[in-house]
Amino acid sequence: MLNDIRTYMLTVGQRAREAARSMSRTETGAKNDALLAIGEALQSNAQTLIAENRKDLEAGRQRGLDDAILDRLELTEKRIGAMAQGVREVAALADPVGEITGLTYRPSGIQVGRMRVPLGVIGIIYESRPNVTADAAALCIKSGNACILRGGSEAVHSNKAIADCIRDGLEQAGLPRDAVQLIETTDRAAVGELIRMDQYVDVIVPRGGKSLIERIAEESRIPVIKHLDGICHVYIDDRCDFDKAIRIALNAKTQRFGVCNAMETLLIAAPVAPILLPDLAHLYREKGVELRGCPKTLKILPDCVPATEEDWSTEYLAPILSIRVVEGLDEAVDHIARYGSQHTDAIVTEDYTRARRFLREVDSSSVMVNASTRFADGYEYGLGAEIGISTDKLHARGPVGLEGLTTQKFVVFGDGHIRT
Amino acid sequence: MLNDIRTYMLTVGQRAREAARSMSRTETGAKNDALLAIGEALQSNAQTLIAENRKDLEAGRQRGLDDAILDRLELTEKRIGAMAQGVREVAALADPVGEITGLTYRPSGIQVGRMRVPLGVIGIIYESRPNVTADAAALCIKSGNACILRGGSEAVHSNKAIADCIRDGLEQAGLPRDAVQLIETTDRAAVGELIRMDQYVDVIVPRGGKSLIERIAEESRIPVIKHLDGICHVYIDDRCDFDKAIRIALNAKTQRFGVCNAMETLLIAAPVAPILLPDLAHLYREKGVELRGCPKTLKILPDCVPATEEDWSTEYLAPILSIRVVEGLDEAVDHIARYGSQHTDAIVTEDYTRARRFLREVDSSSVMVNASTRFADGYEYGLGAEIGISTDKLHARGPVGLEGLTTQKFVVFGDGHIRT
Repeated sequence: MLNDIRTYMLTVGQRAREAARSMSRTETGAKNDALLAIGEALQSNAQTLIAENRKDLEAGRQRGLDDAILDRLELTEKRIGAMAQGVREVAALADPVGEITGLTYRPSGIQVGRMRVPLGVIGIIYESRPNVTADAAALCIKSGNACILRGGSEAVHSNKAIADCIRDGLEQAGLPRDAVQLIETTDRAAVGELIRMDQYVDVIVPRGGKSLIERIAEESRIPVIKHLDGICHVYIDDRCDFDKAIRIALNAKTQRFGVCNAMETLLIAAPVAPILLPDLAHLYREKGVELRGCPKTLKILPDCVPATEEDWSTEYLAPILSIRVVEGLDEAVDHIARYGSQHTDAIVTEDYTRARRFLREVDSSSVMVNASTRFADGYEYGLGAEIGISTDKLHARGPVGLEGLTTQKFVVFGDGHIRT
Repeated sequence: MLNDIRTYMLTVGQRAREAARSMSRTETGAKNDALLAIGEALQSNAQTLIAENRKDLEAGRQRGLDDAILDRLELTEKRIGAMAQGVREVAALADPVGEITGLTYRPSGIQVGRMRVPLGVIGIIYESRPNVTADAAALCIKSGNACILRGGSEAVHSNKAIADCIRDGLEQAGLPRDAVQLIETTDRAAVGELIRMDQYVDVIVPRGGKSLIERIAEESRIPVIKHLDGICHVYIDDRCDFDKAIRIALNAKTQRFGVCNAMETLLIAAPVAPILLPDLAHLYREKGVELRGCPKTLKILPDCVPATEEDWSTEYLAPILSIRVVEGLDEAVDHIARYGSQHTDAIVTEDYTRARRFLREVDSSSVMVNASTRFADGYEYGLGAEIGISTDKLHARGPVGLEGLTTQKFVVFGDGHIRT
């Protein structure tokens, strides 16, 4: 049985590698044609998708999945329309493949530059939401990669129906169907094979809960593009504009609660804490946010819950905020270095030198001045769609879009030059 | 005992992490001052270095190390001068840290770009040649990183003496001595700890033989910048300039034999094989190169050794060359995809379309047109010194210089902007 799965996965891998070679030399126009054909196929097969999705919803109800999961799983005509539109928007983005940068002549006479090229084969492991199937495939196609998709077992019929539309679209545009393959077995052993077949897969992108990502990062023999925690900070400096501080601190926490780029800890400089915290506390409580404070915060906001050491390193993903009063920039930067997750951190200040220091000294994948951490997002950064956010230091970092699915090679032009 | 080493390594790691934070915000001028002070310290301590080096040479002779290793190990006044000069040249290179690229306004009003930042802590594991201690440290200092060095046990006294000069130079410039730490135990368990302490080390650079690198890549929990094989190809197209073809094919194989960017397999288009191979064979034999050919090659060069399947995937690092006659570009590209090591490959052609296709379709870290593969090198590419060559696809690829020791973060400038 395990041998069968190994054989099946090796076949999937070989086909992906073959398709990747073909995709890497596919022209931009053909890739765009495929994406438009996929958008069309998704839309014109909406009723089929909904019927297949019903099978998953029914099975999910019988397995007792909770309502939030069932909601994420559900495909409606509106959601299918949005999915098709997302694929078309990827067609409209610039093709990162083939761009040559830094082309210069060297003293030896050769000309050297760097050419952007696809990564090759990308393995994507994700849970429940079937729209990831279309989003991820579209990004991989446009960036000239092949992908192997492994969706959650609860969405198996929906994902299969979506993958059929994608493969039909590829074929219509004359591209290999195997540029996008969906793993058809729900056996967990398939994931174990996928993350170990480094001869066929160049990078793994896990999307889902922290425990899924931790397990994959631990066991993979292949580099993983990922982030685990989003413990984002906003530091309100004493030389800030009060209106901006309140606007940003409120938005970063309350615009959405369950997202990785929401603020989890507010750091505020001691001189302005007594002025700003009472107003902020009032606004947070109107939005139902529980506040947990350090001892200095408790002196200003006596009805705050005392924060424990654990609070500073917890990603709540919920209407809870920890607040710490700090002496100034140095203490804020130290706190972020100690407790942060290198995801996204922001300073609110009107001070030129402090803004510059924060930008340089905070070692996170996104660092912001006078803007809400909620902006850390592929769409907001102009990357187009996003395959995830990476807090790793090698290669892709921050929101990962088309460019993050490519790498670079050196190209050298000579005229018969040899080395002496 | 193992516990002692673990404790020692964790202390080294903590100190490196602390020093890395300080190095990341150090100004370019101070880093350059440190490099110049290190160059000075190496030169003025030449006699001490030579005396310490003698201890290693003596111990090496007693252990029966072969002459080639003893030669690589030896420090002379001339070699120390070159080492000091190498460090000074790194001071003269541009600082990659802090460069902001692609800074643009988004429709929301925020301004987004990418800032280049140090990787953090770099662990470098290397064998015999003590000059690596100075080269690697210089690159890490200039790129704003801290490093942990683990040299070969046969060079322990030499490396210690060089590291003392480096740490003195750092201190003179007001930078933390712990930005460069040499592991002082020769116990192998220290390497095992180094490549697993991912909380303190961001990237591992192994330099040495293939078996060392394979073992580290296999066991490391930390990303490794490396290459295993350098099976480089030159493809001579039938639409080539004959003089350029002979010049490049000769240089790529014979300028130096034991280097990773030397050609190991010559691919030649059938129409020009009978014209060029006899002349080439004559020139190769003058240089003492053994030729191993495919059946078609043997028809042209009957006294060639028949090549086996294994020859096509062997990095000889020696005066041996395998030769294969191919129909044309497609077969050449297929051969490289199948047997190559994604290191460096070159085409010799005057045909515009074939040159373009080769550049796009060959998936190697360096791809060349009408130039010798021997140019794949940090100095030749203008990266300054080189910490190694990477055939990996994530992050650094090809020769890795200062920029390869940095990564990027997104920076966002707003004016109180919030997300709606």
